[in-house]
Amino acid sequence: MIRNVGLLVAAVCAHAMMPMPVRVAPGTGRMAIDNGFQIVVSGVSDARLEAAAARAMARLSRQTGIPFLGAKGSAALRVECAAKGSEYPTLGEDESYTLDVTANGAVVKAATASGGMHGIETFLQLVGPGAGGFQAAAVHIEDRPRFAWRGLMLDSGRHWMPVAVVKRNLDAMAAVKLNVFHWHLSEDQGFRVESKRYPKLHELGSDGLYYTQAEVREIVAYARDRGIRVVPEFDIPGHTQSWLAAYPELATNPGTYQIGRTWGVYEPVMDPSKEWTYEFLDGFFAEMTALFPDPYWHIGGDEVRDTQWRASAHVQAWVKEHNLKDSHAIQAYFNQRVQKLLQKHGKILIGWDEVLHPDLPQDIVVQSWRGAKSLAEAASKGYRGILSSGYYLDHLEPARQHYAVDPLGGDAAKLTPEQQARILGGEACMWSEYVTSETVDSRIWPRAAAIAERYWSPADVTDVNSMYDRMEAVSRVLEWTGVQHRANYQPMLDRMAGGRPAEPLRVLADAVEGVGLGPRARAQRYTSLVPMNRLPDAARPESESVRAMELAAAKVAADPKGSAAESAMLRRAFAKWSENDARFVEMAGENPLLVELKPLSKDLAALGNAGLVLLDYLEKGAALPAGFTGNWDQELRRLARPEVEVMVAGARPVKVLLEAAKK
Amino acid sequence: MIRNVGLLVAAVCAHAMMPMPVRVAPGTGRMAIDNGFQIVVSGVSDARLEAAAARAMARLSRQTGIPFLGAKGSAALRVECAAKGSEYPTLGEDESYTLDVTANGAVVKAATASGGMHGIETFLQLVGPGAGGFQAAAVHIEDRPRFAWRGLMLDSGRHWMPVAVVKRNLDAMAAVKLNVFHWHLSEDQGFRVESKRYPKLHELGSDGLYYTQAEVREIVAYARDRGIRVVPEFDIPGHTQSWLAAYPELATNPGTYQIGRTWGVYEPVMDPSKEWTYEFLDGFFAEMTALFPDPYWHIGGDEVRDTQWRASAHVQAWVKEHNLKDSHAIQAYFNQRVQKLLQKHGKILIGWDEVLHPDLPQDIVVQSWRGAKSLAEAASKGYRGILSSGYYLDHLEPARQHYAVDPLGGDAAKLTPEQQARILGGEACMWSEYVTSETVDSRIWPRAAAIAERYWSPADVTDVNSMYDRMEAVSRVLEWTGVQHRANYQPMLDRMAGGRPAEPLRVLADAVEGVGLGPRARAQRYTSLVPMNRLPDAARPESESVRAMELAAAKVAADPKGSAAESAMLRRAFAKWSENDARFVEMAGENPLLVELKPLSKDLAALGNAGLVLLDYLEKGAALPAGFTGNWDQELRRLARPEVEVMVAGARPVKVLLEAAKK
Repeated sequence: MIRNVGLLVAAVCAHAMMPMPVRVAPGTGRMAIDNGFQIVVSGVSDARLEAAAARAMARLSRQTGIPFLGAKGSAALRVECAAKGSEYPTLGEDESYTLDVTANGAVVKAATASGGMHGIETFLQLVGPGAGGFQAAAVHIEDRPRFAWRGLMLDSGRHWMPVAVVKRNLDAMAAVKLNVFHWHLSEDQGFRVESKRYPKLHELGSDGLYYTQAEVREIVAYARDRGIRVVPEFDIPGHTQSWLAAYPELATNPGTYQIGRTWGVYEPVMDPSKEWTYEFLDGFFAEMTALFPDPYWHIGGDEVRDTQWRASAHVQAWVKEHNLKDSHAIQAYFNQRVQKLLQKHGKILIGWDEVLHPDLPQDIVVQSWRGAKSLAEAASKGYRGILSSGYYLDHLEPARQHYAVDPLGGDAAKLTPEQQARILGGEACMWSEYVTSETVDSRIWPRAAAIAERYWSPADVTDVNSMYDRMEAVSRVLEWTGVQHRANYQPMLDRMAGGRPAEPLRVLADAVEGVGLGPRARAQRYTSLVPMNRLPDAARPESESVRAMELAAAKVAADPKGSAAESAMLRRAFAKWSENDARFVEMAGENPLLVELKPLSKDLAALGNAGLVLLDYLEKGAALPAGFTGNWDQELRRLARPEVEVMVAGARPVKVLLEAAKK
Repeated sequence: MIRNVGLLVAAVCAHAMMPMPVRVAPGTGRMAIDNGFQIVVSGVSDARLEAAAARAMARLSRQTGIPFLGAKGSAALRVECAAKGSEYPTLGEDESYTLDVTANGAVVKAATASGGMHGIETFLQLVGPGAGGFQAAAVHIEDRPRFAWRGLMLDSGRHWMPVAVVKRNLDAMAAVKLNVFHWHLSEDQGFRVESKRYPKLHELGSDGLYYTQAEVREIVAYARDRGIRVVPEFDIPGHTQSWLAAYPELATNPGTYQIGRTWGVYEPVMDPSKEWTYEFLDGFFAEMTALFPDPYWHIGGDEVRDTQWRASAHVQAWVKEHNLKDSHAIQAYFNQRVQKLLQKHGKILIGWDEVLHPDLPQDIVVQSWRGAKSLAEAASKGYRGILSSGYYLDHLEPARQHYAVDPLGGDAAKLTPEQQARILGGEACMWSEYVTSETVDSRIWPRAAAIAERYWSPADVTDVNSMYDRMEAVSRVLEWTGVQHRANYQPMLDRMAGGRPAEPLRVLADAVEGVGLGPRARAQRYTSLVPMNRLPDAARPESESVRAMELAAAKVAADPKGSAAESAMLRRAFAKWSENDARFVEMAGENPLLVELKPLSKDLAALGNAGLVLLDYLEKGAALPAGFTGNWDQELRRLARPEVEVMVAGARPVKVLLEAAKK
């Protein structure tokens, strides 16, 4: 067996293999994929597996362009499962599988339908164009997940996410073996599920943008068919302004409330002192728990402001009466009541760090957004937990940063094995202040694939370059699932260009990277009504072309005279930047979406010129003029900060060359 | 009023205006589009108009990236229709409208819902980014179609076209005011509609790829909602091998038949001598005509081979008995019988040229694939007709070629006004031998927009450069309707590249153009089972970047020393081609989808080098070496023929420079 991931990938030609399986042993030969290819479900018969096979056929047809109309005598993929597994996917079920590919066909064997579906997904990742056409290299794979809880959280509250967005992301999740869809369904800015019991919730709390109950059921079934659990989150008692717009009597302070339009933490919270609050929630849970079969129920519980509680005479009287020592105790009281209600309705409570309190039973689950320390503390106290700190996709950090975060890293590494076993896994979080249905895919993918590998693959799969190589390949393959992280880029640039050729804008966009929540909030006052149609929205979180330039620059820096190909590639790119500004200015005209980018374009041209100069000096081995060095040290410090809400990523390869040329 | 199209477009900033309206008078100021924009239907209330307004809001939101959540006090588009019009769109209904845009709002006025919808589409084309953000320039427009029958024919028979493909193309049709969807539903290779009366038709004749009756109704309603008539075609008595696979007793020759897999004209035809054939068709029409409300019914009737009729003893005996003088007379007999059956079921017969025969009544319509002469002949004999010759999209000819064909051109120009009035319009035809659901959009759009302009706009709107400028802009705007003519290009290249960066392949693909039916059929033996996943499938019918280079080359040719910007642009492009080959060869490896393209890549590099040399000579004003001229005259002749089933379009700008440098 080969343990080195890079060698393995080369051996089986599986550039898009992500997450890496536990054990991969290359075989001899290859299985040809032609128009007679089929997937045969043998062993137990299960509607989910049959549907998964049909979906895989359709996707493979898109992925290869081959119409499968049943020619005779071709090789098949056989899927054999020992048992169906439970009706809905469950936490901790056996997801293992083996996959054997030979020249004559392929076999997936698994304990359950979930494992069978994972095996099919791995097979799809093996198929690519080879010497004989589309094919899968012979291989023996044994695979099972490291963590049982591998989630993606999507915030449908702040910006509305239509059913199609949810579905296509479920397909992509399944492709990288994520198995929990954490669906954030209510926020200050929107309550997103139809309620028949409390219809004002969706009527007054959603701007008409909500999921009908039929749609919720459809999505739960869609997820189930892909081996994915759906854990809903209705965040209480804070983050509830949209509820209060519908039922102000739930609020600590009486009054009228509007759907939130701005971002940040709101002061209004539910009234924990009124019995009616719990009666309302009991009715609410009775209705809503029937829609979601998973036993886990997320109550949010984060960022509860106590301003209204402290200012309210009747709450303070009640606090005294109940002898609650502080606001955390108030929330713990509220959570205890809620936990009992959920228990009555057959659900196990899960909440963000803030719900942790000794008065709550040990079967609850804590989701940590605060960090490994908070998670380790929960585990040491006997609570189960999942890690989300370090996995916030909306911060638009590079994949390698998320990839380096391990649910069992940091303080969790010091726990006993028994305590560590309480850490169930992790969840990547996609909060939606700065994304719309058009941009959300590009903020989730492909980076969530690298996080999925962290949750699935052995802890020692950590090579960053291999991760990036495979992530860039899987990014392209993921497109065939329907997610639009790559597809929406060019149309957004075309829109900005007003229907004219957008090439100069594309050159600029390719060299910058989007920034996350913090820098955007600081740049200007956003609300849910502000269009997300500018370069900061189109720009990708990570630029593939700049990464390639950084790799080339590192080679040139190490060996300026022996890196001719890299040097030529960098010269082409720098020259393009340098020449682009004049064309960009010409196309910008009076168009405000482009006019604001003129300084960026000028910076990029300057970087291109500097890059060309640096290559000359490095190749000559001559010393840089002092003025140049001082000037560019300063420029690169300036460019390390966001500008027009993007990062000029193109500064990074120039910095590599500058540092090398200084020596 | 300004009649010059170019000036008009500049005046109202409407680069995506296609088809050009009859009368456009620029106004003063502009209407801002912000998040309070809305469309208000006044005048008669009609469900179609309300739905059209909602769709337009959704599309405008995609087109601009602006969320419309109802801010107060913004400008609105008001749509006032005098009458609903008929329940289904009808041939010749009043489709005229006026559109007035001012700084305070916009108004569409129309006689019917169809005109109202056209007005909305024109408004959407006016919106783009301007000095104050997204806006529509003030304008007064009066508009009406030149022809009443403006169609697109889609062949769902040869390659299957799923419901989603049909729907997105209907949306794009509506955007350019096409109003007839001619749906080719049966072919030798597939019978595509569920039949409850003759279920073997779809069970044995479709590979399981057919529209259910519910889906047919859904599509007819979808088209109706967009002002589009649906004219179904079930081609008889030839092109019926898939019928015969289900009901061989319909065939002239007894035997067993298989669904056709190869292309070309098949010999098996229905038996015109058997009464049972007409009984079958009577039952078939009884069932199928109920699905399609339009009064016109297309029977195909093209390319009927008479081999079986001539070889059949019982047919020949019957021919003698009925005193039919030749095979055309046999078909005319068949068509007369069919026409009477259709009449009984309330339908008017339409067929291809071959159906024309004096024994058929004058209310039938002839669709001409043979040419203007054939159409003029029909009109002179009192028949109504539509032109399709010159509008075959599957030939992959440049838009300007289709644009130059006028339904009233050629022999039709010599007809009397009364005869000319019988020429109802035209139809662009998309035959599907060489397209799949993935590639069909790129073979229809944007070229069908130029054809739509020919059918709609005044006959004197003929400026080719203006057409191309607007077509390239409308191509981008059409993407927001959902068609994937631009979207599927890069994923197809990514697929060919096996998940690796596809840039060198893209450089090559951008410089070539796909070829049509003829050259592809001559290049290799295709069947419906051959994957359409190679460069000839991804390559566009027309290269925008090469067109831009041709324009630049023409300027350089005219004034080599005064065209610095054009010269620089050409140098960049030529250098890119020249440098690309080494990178392409490296990426190709053993991948057969790329290996076959190596000669093309070498040709492109040579063209790049030649282009650079030619620019040098032109700028210096020096005479070319004779060897160079002779060599490149020969090379360009070679490159004027298809290679690997594409045209090296990049040869065209080089030819322009070569001719100039020769002088």
